[in-house]
Amino acid sequence: MSIPQRFSLVTLGVADVETATAFYHRIGWRETHSSVPGEVSFFATPGGVLALWETAELAKDAALPTFHANAPAFRAVALAINLDSREAVDDAMGDWVLAGGSIAKAAAATAWGGYSGYVADLDGNLWEFAHNPAWPLDERGLPVIG
Amino acid sequence: MSIPQRFSLVTLGVADVETATAFYHRIGWRETHSSVPGEVSFFATPGGVLALWETAELAKDAALPTFHANAPAFRAVALAINLDSREAVDDAMGDWVLAGGSIAKAAAATAWGGYSGYVADLDGNLWEFAHNPAWPLDERGLPVIG
Repeated sequence: MSIPQRFSLVTLGVADVETATAFYHRIGWRETHSSVPGEVSFFATPGGVLALWETAELAKDAALPTFHANAPAFRAVALAINLDSREAVDDAMGDWVLAGGSIAKAAAATAWGGYSGYVADLDGNLWEFAHNPAWPLDERGLPVIG
Repeated sequence: MSIPQRFSLVTLGVADVETATAFYHRIGWRETHSSVPGEVSFFATPGGVLALWETAELAKDAALPTFHANAPAFRAVALAINLDSREAVDDAMGDWVLAGGSIAKAAAATAWGGYSGYVADLDGNLWEFAHNPAWPLDERGLPVIG
């Protein structure tokens, strides 16, 4: 098998790249020079790259003939940002809302011994903010799991 | 702002965790000990963690009341694995199909000067295999973008 166990890029479909990018700017994120204003935005991270691209363009690129750009509130995919305390989760949720994002589920203690909440961006892309004491974060801020 | 520019985890919704995990085993990926057989599977990568979780559980966890687990062929999200040659893309696409996955779009030269194709896993989660000569891969296999 020749498929390496990794992912290079996660692309989130959005209705309008400029509007969506402005939201991620408001949470404090900065794009790379590779971005093409209004067409595609790339955000470098310590792991893979996060991209924002028009949902219709993504569908076309993947040769998927039909899609419902704005229909599903739930896309069956979630990204998570793990943080090093419950307070950091609360702060992040607050900043998200200040930036114009919405809360799907308020932060609360979880069955797995941590603390988390879910938010959505302007297009319904789902993010979780979590503190998981069982998953320490390395120097890049990424979880180390056994 | 207190939201770090990173993601720790990407969770893909699946109809059945055991079935979905077996597919990713067939492409050669190995889980961590944190996985709970039949409930949730975690795959460590050089960046964030990839998780497979039942779509209905993910929706419930995010307090999203309605969803169509199997309805949308297109989830408006795609992950990509960048590889270091066109041949590596072809090999990966071949292995994906051998493992029981499907091809959404055959690999072909792209407008951005690279080469890519799209595939889907058993649940319709979309992956792109790409060679992008403008994005060199670092020692971890992750793209370096300017």
